[in-house]
Amino acid sequence: MSPDRPIYLDHNATTPILPEVVDAMLPYLREHFGNPSSGHVYGRIARDAVALSRHRVAVLLGCDDDEILFTSGGTEANNLAIRGVTEAVGKRRHVITTVIEHPATANPCRWLERHGWRITRVDVDADGRTRVDDVRGALDADTALVTVMHSNNETGVLQPVAEIVKLAQTVGAVVHTDAAQSVGKTPVRVKELAVDLLSVAGHKLYAPKGVGALYVKRGAPLLPFALGADHEWGLRPGTENVASIVGLGVACDVVQRDLETTAARMRGLRDMLWTRLATSVPGLALNGDAERRLPNTLNVRFPGVLGSAVLAGALEIAASTGSACHDGHEAASAVIVAMGIAPTDAVGSVRLTLGRGTTEGDVARASVALVHSWQHLHERDGA
Amino acid sequence: MSPDRPIYLDHNATTPILPEVVDAMLPYLREHFGNPSSGHVYGRIARDAVALSRHRVAVLLGCDDDEILFTSGGTEANNLAIRGVTEAVGKRRHVITTVIEHPATANPCRWLERHGWRITRVDVDADGRTRVDDVRGALDADTALVTVMHSNNETGVLQPVAEIVKLAQTVGAVVHTDAAQSVGKTPVRVKELAVDLLSVAGHKLYAPKGVGALYVKRGAPLLPFALGADHEWGLRPGTENVASIVGLGVACDVVQRDLETTAARMRGLRDMLWTRLATSVPGLALNGDAERRLPNTLNVRFPGVLGSAVLAGALEIAASTGSACHDGHEAASAVIVAMGIAPTDAVGSVRLTLGRGTTEGDVARASVALVHSWQHLHERDGA
Repeated sequence: MSPDRPIYLDHNATTPILPEVVDAMLPYLREHFGNPSSGHVYGRIARDAVALSRHRVAVLLGCDDDEILFTSGGTEANNLAIRGVTEAVGKRRHVITTVIEHPATANPCRWLERHGWRITRVDVDADGRTRVDDVRGALDADTALVTVMHSNNETGVLQPVAEIVKLAQTVGAVVHTDAAQSVGKTPVRVKELAVDLLSVAGHKLYAPKGVGALYVKRGAPLLPFALGADHEWGLRPGTENVASIVGLGVACDVVQRDLETTAARMRGLRDMLWTRLATSVPGLALNGDAERRLPNTLNVRFPGVLGSAVLAGALEIAASTGSACHDGHEAASAVIVAMGIAPTDAVGSVRLTLGRGTTEGDVARASVALVHSWQHLHERDGA
Repeated sequence: MSPDRPIYLDHNATTPILPEVVDAMLPYLREHFGNPSSGHVYGRIARDAVALSRHRVAVLLGCDDDEILFTSGGTEANNLAIRGVTEAVGKRRHVITTVIEHPATANPCRWLERHGWRITRVDVDADGRTRVDDVRGALDADTALVTVMHSNNETGVLQPVAEIVKLAQTVGAVVHTDAAQSVGKTPVRVKELAVDLLSVAGHKLYAPKGVGALYVKRGAPLLPFALGADHEWGLRPGTENVASIVGLGVACDVVQRDLETTAARMRGLRDMLWTRLATSVPGLALNGDAERRLPNTLNVRFPGVLGSAVLAGALEIAASTGSACHDGHEAASAVIVAMGIAPTDAVGSVRLTLGRGTTEGDVARASVALVHSWQHLHERDGA
């Protein structure tokens, strides 16, 4: 981080692009501008680059190259998965999801509901984990699709996806997981999860915005969502976003190399931040499961104040009270409230999310800034 | 063009990105990585950049800033327009389109047809122009939408969009035009056309792949296609592709500055290419209207040979027989056949499309290469 800008602790909103990712993209923004569908050499160079990136994404997820489709991002991947599966399956008309999904999952489900589908929205427990028993109870022979996020974007809490897949398989339901927030931060292996579809968002793992991917297990029922020419095996039309796809491939390659060590380092810094804050702020609470959580995510509840006020008083850092997609709203986060926290307490929440570039010095400065801001509010309110 | 690569005459497949466009994107790929939805300074910088680009696109098209939505490209813009309008209108269940649309329009129309809509596909005349009388005859009180491309991607023929709008207005139908191939090559002003929606594809006008825009006239009926968070006034979800949006804005700014002079220069070179080819290839025919045509597009029919064979023998140039999205197919182009050309003749077609970087030397070398290739085939076949 440059010294004149606040410390960036909002990596769940978006990540910086890695320098090696930008460097790899540049030739495809300059000389290698061909359309991958063109038969000539310009086309072939672009086509080869897309193929290599597809392989790199597949390696990170542990699948075959032809099980990866490129999209314009996580939102499109979720729309393609949810709308594409429900359009492809036969007579079943029931979808199971959770109450803590990102709008890019929740709103396609609402669309289905408006078009005659039955939607079951499963609750989470006090730790922010999907209640597996409720999924079990909701599954029936009419269930076409279960869509459960891999980790929550606000709390970082990892969801019991593999367990849910085992249950879903007993009734022949397809399982999709939105892993936008997980891929690149924690190991995500599609064969271990045994999911049918999995969404990836480039800009959450140090690749550019505007590119993502959808893992589609071979044989999974899927029709295209957007319609057009025959790109991506007829499942996702539109001239391939070559440079950004190259960037996504390189980002996958980089994060793959040191996933465990980076996660461990991030967890150490994250826990240091928690310790420093908890030591100085009596009554500070952790939102979500302490263990089963993304290593970079710390979502805390300051007592008796607004989280937005704490952040407004800590100008040295850039963070958010919840997801960026909802930033600026004063209302309590639905994700936090779903865990059983009273809305009047939930509004004290602040999401602090670390990245590969976060240093121990950043954590030290951030904790001082947050504590000072909280103390100022606390004293002002005469508490 | 670098001397070791073939002369690029496939600008309708995709264009190189202008150097100033890449230069403008770089800060947003490097330091300015924020999410435009974030409340902090990283977010604000990204948000301001998106706003400036929106203005630049609006200036090129002659509309207000808030009438521009950013998409992942032309295909998504067409899907959003066609699906979004038909979902938003009330009881009408009829769409009029043409037989020469790009698959990104034709296939959304087929989807509607499978879902109970009535679709009228209007023919073109021998010049490749939509038969306006047929549109008039097809319009009725049930017509929700008319979608007609602004110029054809294979022949470059400009379509009578403004005339069609006047007719459509008499029955209250919405009009969308896919201007992916036109914007940046010829003046496209939404108020003159009086269309309700108009699609733009970045990579056809020297901006990157993976970004586009949809003009939506204020008050036009539209629901979102992909569903998610509240980006783009709730009409197009997904974290904004900031760097590519910046690129699209700069590209619009650059092409706007010299649109007429560049078009005139391109027309001159294009006509020089035609003259050189026609002089040396007896029986060479022009596909499509000679006048009402994009200034950069030359679609010619070589007699008695396959267009793909002509190109295979002209390694000094990179061009295609039709749209890149269909490249590699030996079948006659449906667009050329729709003009009344016999399929056995249509297969002799070659699409030569010039760009801002095309020089007189390129045209001279290209014509020699094409003529030699044709002569070789012609002599081999003993004609």
